[in-house]
Order: sequence, then C-alpha cells, then structure tokens
Amino acid sequence: MSVTAAKGFTAAGIAAGIKENGNPDLALVVNTGPRRAAAGVFTSNRVKAAPVLWSEQVLNSGELAAVVLNSGGANACTGPKGFQDTHATAEKAAEVLGVGAGEVAVASTGLIGVLLPMDKLLPGVERAAAALSEHGGEKAAIAIKTTDTVHKTAVREGSGWTVGGMAKGAGMLAPGLATMLVVLTTDADVDSATLDKALRAATRTTFDRVDSDGCMSTNDTVLLLASGASGTAPEYDEFAEAVRAVCDDLGQQLIRDAEGASKDIKIEVVGAASEDDAVEVGRSIARNNLLKCAIHGEDPNWGRVLSAIGTTSAAFEPDRLNVAINGVWVCRNGSVGEDRELVDMRYREVHIVADLSAGSETATVWTNDLTADYVHENSAYSS
Amino acid sequence: MSVTAAKGFTAAGIAAGIKENGNPDLALVVNTGPRRAAAGVFTSNRVKAAPVLWSEQVLNSGELAAVVLNSGGANACTGPKGFQDTHATAEKAAEVLGVGAGEVAVASTGLIGVLLPMDKLLPGVERAAAALSEHGGEKAAIAIKTTDTVHKTAVREGSGWTVGGMAKGAGMLAPGLATMLVVLTTDADVDSATLDKALRAATRTTFDRVDSDGCMSTNDTVLLLASGASGTAPEYDEFAEAVRAVCDDLGQQLIRDAEGASKDIKIEVVGAASEDDAVEVGRSIARNNLLKCAIHGEDPNWGRVLSAIGTTSAAFEPDRLNVAINGVWVCRNGSVGEDRELVDMRYREVHIVADLSAGSETATVWTNDLTADYVHENSAYSS
Repeated sequence: MSVTAAKGFTAAGIAAGIKENGNPDLALVVNTGPRRAAAGVFTSNRVKAAPVLWSEQVLNSGELAAVVLNSGGANACTGPKGFQDTHATAEKAAEVLGVGAGEVAVASTGLIGVLLPMDKLLPGVERAAAALSEHGGEKAAIAIKTTDTVHKTAVREGSGWTVGGMAKGAGMLAPGLATMLVVLTTDADVDSATLDKALRAATRTTFDRVDSDGCMSTNDTVLLLASGASGTAPEYDEFAEAVRAVCDDLGQQLIRDAEGASKDIKIEVVGAASEDDAVEVGRSIARNNLLKCAIHGEDPNWGRVLSAIGTTSAAFEPDRLNVAINGVWVCRNGSVGEDRELVDMRYREVHIVADLSAGSETATVWTNDLTADYVHENSAYSS
Repeated sequence: MSVTAAKGFTAAGIAAGIKENGNPDLALVVNTGPRRAAAGVFTSNRVKAAPVLWSEQVLNSGELAAVVLNSGGANACTGPKGFQDTHATAEKAAEVLGVGAGEVAVASTGLIGVLLPMDKLLPGVERAAAALSEHGGEKAAIAIKTTDTVHKTAVREGSGWTVGGMAKGAGMLAPGLATMLVVLTTDADVDSATLDKALRAATRTTFDRVDSDGCMSTNDTVLLLASGASGTAPEYDEFAEAVRAVCDDLGQQLIRDAEGASKDIKIEVVGAASEDDAVEVGRSIARNNLLKCAIHGEDPNWGRVLSAIGTTSAAFEPDRLNVAINGVWVCRNGSVGEDRELVDMRYREVHIVADLSAGSETATVWTNDLTADYVHENSAYSS
C-alpha cells in the first residue's frame, strides 16, 4: 500500500544509523515511469530547512525521479554545510539510480540545528536503493517516523488508477502545513500542472487546517508524483477528489497521533461572511491554550471559545454568536444558552460549532487538547 | 500601600460571598478628592465583558469617584442581564457613597458566562463602603485575586506626590492587556488628558508586552485615578516615568505568579527594522508552545526560536539571525553557533536575545514556560 499502491513506484525504508537508537530512518521512493510528473507544496515558514530549499528548486522542472527522506535530523538552520549535505544526498541517490540529481527531491525531519551524519546517510542511500521493492511502501512509511506512534498510509482507487501516500507528523502541526513529510504517488497519467492544481486544492482544505499546536515547521513537505503506469488519464474532478481524500485521511491520522493528545477537536465555523473569516476564527479557537486545557479536563468552557473569536478580525457581532459543544448549544446570542451540564465530553472526539451569524460560509479546523503529556514530550525532546 | 499609598484615597476588601469558598471577593476604591480625574485602558478583545462596556462609557467624562471590583465571576458573555447587573452595582456604590453612578467604574474577573450573585454582591458593596479606610489598599488587593497565589501592589514616590497600585492576574495573560485588573492611584494634581497619555504610554511597553499564554481576556481593565491631594502638579516626564515604573513592577509580578510557571522568560528582540517588527517577533516567540515546553525542560532548543521568527512578517534574512540564550550565542547567522551545552538553564529567569540584524530597534516581551501544572490548573478551572 502506501506509496507503492500505485503502479510504477518502488520504495524502501532502512535503518541507516542516523537515529542513535537504531530505528529505521531513511526512506527512498522511486518513480519507474513511464512518466515522471511531480508537484510539491512546502512550508510557508520563512526559515526553511536545506532540503526544502533544494526540493523547491528541483520541482521547478515539474519532474521527479525519486525522493530521499530521512528522519533523525531536520537539516534546518545548518547553514551552507547543511545545503551541501542535501545536495550530496541527491547526488548519491542520482548516482545509484542512474538519474540526474536535479530529478531527486530530499525531505528531512527531526531536530533543528544539527548537521546530519553524512558518513551514515550516504551509505544508507546505497543500501536503500538495493532494497527498493514494489512492496516497499510500508517500510518507507515506517522509516520517516519521529515521535509518531504509528506509521500513516492511505489509498484511494479511481477508475483504473490509484492514489496512495504516506505521512509522518506528530508535533509542530500547524497551518502552512504541519510538521509533516508527505509523499503521494499515483499511476494516473497526469501532467505536472494538473498535479500541482490538485495538490494545492487538496492541501488548502486538509493539511492546512490541521493545527495541533500552532507551531509552524521549517521542513513541511508534501509531494505528489505521477508515473502514468496505469495508462489512464482521469477526469480532473475525480482525480482531484481522490487526492483530497488521501490528504484528508492522512491529515486525520496526524491529528489522532498528535503528541500527548487525549482529545481530537473538530472546530466547525459556520455562518461566516467569508471562508477566510471562517478559517481565521477556526485557527484562533484551535490555538487557544486555555480552551485546549479545558477540553482536556472535559470542561465545556465556552467562554474561552468566545474569547478566542473576539481576538479575530472576522465579521461578527458579539451578541449574535452561538456555540455548540458536542451538540449542545451552550452559548446563544453571545450569552448563556443550554445547560453546560448536558454536554457529554467522555469521548475522544470533541465537536465545537461556532456560529458567527454573519453569512453562510464555513470552514473546519482540527486540533487537539493540551495535556501534561504534550508538555512532557516536548520538554524532553532534544535532550 | 497599594491604592491607598497616595493621599486622597480610601479602599476596602471584603468577602461578599461571591466566591463559594468564602475568600475575599469584593474591593472598593474611592477617590476622596479634591479632584477626580481618571483614565482607563481596556481589553482589545471584541468580546467585552459587561463591566468593560460600562467602564469605557463612564470614563468618557474623564472623572471617576470610585471603582468597584469583584473576583469570583467575570460577568462576560452574560447578555443584557449582565449589563444590568453591572449598572446596578454602580448604582448601589453611587447611592452609598453619595455620588453619581456615572462616576463609578466596575471591574470583574472570574469565570466567563455565569451571572453574578447580585443578592450577595449588592449587600457586599454596602459592607465594603462601611469598611473604607485610608489603610485599606492591601485588603482591596487581596479581594481581587483569582488564581493568583499572592496579591500584587507597587508604589513609586515622586517629588511630593505618589503613584501606587494593585493588580491581579495569573492566567489568560496576553497583549492587548493580560487578564488583569489594575487600579493605579496618585495624589499628583493631574488632569484626565495627562493621565490618559501617561497611562497609554506606560501600558504599551509594560502590560501589553506580558504574554503568558497568548490568550486575550474579555475583562482586562487598567484604571488610573488622580486625587490631586498632594497639591503638587508634577513635570509630565517625571510623572509618566513613575506610572511606567509602577506598571512595569506590577507586570513583572504578574509574570512571576503566572499559572503553573516554573520559568520567567525575557525575550529581547534587537536589531529590528522597526519597533513593530521587534514586538511581532517577540510575541511570536512568546507564543511558541514547543519553545515554552523546551524551556520548561531546561533545553536551549534555539531551533524553535528560529521557527517562531520565521512565521512573522518582520524584516530579516534567515542567514543573518542570531540567538543567545542566557548569554550564549547558540545560533549565529541562522546556523549552529556556540555549544548549547554551555547554556546554564538552572535558574528561574531565562533570557533570550533574538538579533534580526535588520536595523536598530528593540522590544522586550515577557512570557513563561509551559508546564504540566499550567495544564492541570486550566483543565480543572471551571469544574
């Protein structure tokens, strides 16, 4: 499954020794053709890791033969040496695969500000190439994990073609893409412009609306590669929907595996004057630490939802705001609504509806609760 | 000391029964003149509590005879009834003090979305009026506490006049004023326009740069009352500096008592192209949950500082950023600097310097670490 669900792809995942604990840390995904169309979406953080700078440049051609991904080090804030290391990684993959370095994307994840152990990474690329297989998708998905507790894959079947993918991400999940590395593959016969259009449309309403902790990464990378191996050129709408569905599925898996989380919170903003307003309000609620603590405590503290809405520039009148938590309209017209005791908060999924009463646009943003486990995981992360 | 350090003021703090645990919860501050000049600064949250709406209106006259403050309930998101309750509180204080209701400001703090128990609050106003004293400042400061572990007061002496004040605030501390109620008093002979100018200048660089958890309250209120009782009209600069110093002192006390915090983090942004850039960068760093967790773990994880800077619109080049933590320049030119092992993180105060290398403007923002205790306090707050 994963990145090898679609025909025309091989993949591998190995332990190159980048991680000191010996876990798998290097993945290779190869497009065996016949076509090599590709598109990518990257972090909007202005501090970008070396592999992001490299891969953005490589993708200008609209073609990729392979992607090298490593966990165990982000290669971010590593200066000119870091960029040289990314370049050398692409060169090594190109050499062993018999392609050009300009056809190889690189993605890295892990601690910022540490150089990668190239004496382990480069031999690892050779070993990964030797391990490439049409069934290697799962191993590749496992090799890109950092604090993920499970590996994440998803597949959708079209009419004679397939879209599959893998993702990693557990912390630093925020709009402008979570700290995620995602590789999607398809055997549909699609050109790079179409891939780009479908991928941007998909990420805008999926990964871009997953906001676990409000922190935007330096390394976010989402790639979509097409081999054309199915020989089928799909209708755009059907193809775009399949890409969206795979992104949505992977995004949900990211939220469910977010660091330390005990609740998955779906924030549905309705009645907005514009979609931008709805997204702004959704993100503001998703980033409110006090609300996230309250949800952790199974406390339907709707006042914190209103406080968060009040910090936005969205169109609304305070005395027309309504808020439902798990189906109970605890706030009506900006004031006390139904009895908060009626709200059942025992389950993992929490559904907040914020009605701005200002129009008919909507947006849904996903986040998690804030827990002592999150604090613990992230206070001990680099040490 | 507190609000009764300056001549011309009486105060009281009592237990009116608003808090179920019987702790003090009602404070009254009265300006006995000869003048009654006043100024105020309020939350910029668009969802404003009833007492904020009331007090903003009252202050249009530039005069205040008294302030009623209660803890135990924010009277926010309480609809028309909440506003009527604030009005009734001012009316009651006006009646017992022999002034007009339009000369009485009201401030409330506590849980949002709950009506105040007026059957306890109104008799409480009468009892507080009966308890007014020139030595009542400490008791008033105690009565406005919510989750504060200590009450907060500060005093500065001018040339023949005094500025004193009290503050409460422990959570929901963010720019646009923290969840704070602050009353400052002075016996200087100053008009309301001068008070307004000095207060706005002071809060802009003190309370507005205290950002404990990024959450902006519905109730923030900072009032400055002048009695003129010293008979001395100070130089503006000396007066403004005394007001700033009292605000700075109280702001520091708020940070040191922030919910669950174990570290006080001073974020000094230097080399900015503009003060706005410096403040934007400082706030972005202050709100980065991952950094706040890392600091809690005594981990000088400077990559998270760069990630936070990268999300701003400030002028900078990624490869010219420098970051020092507790005096060690762990990041130079956007990359690895001095050895992070040299950073001593054992003490409560942590000092981060972010140098944007883009100009000569600076700003300092204060925040706290993110701890399991913060999660615990705020997951159990309203239940």
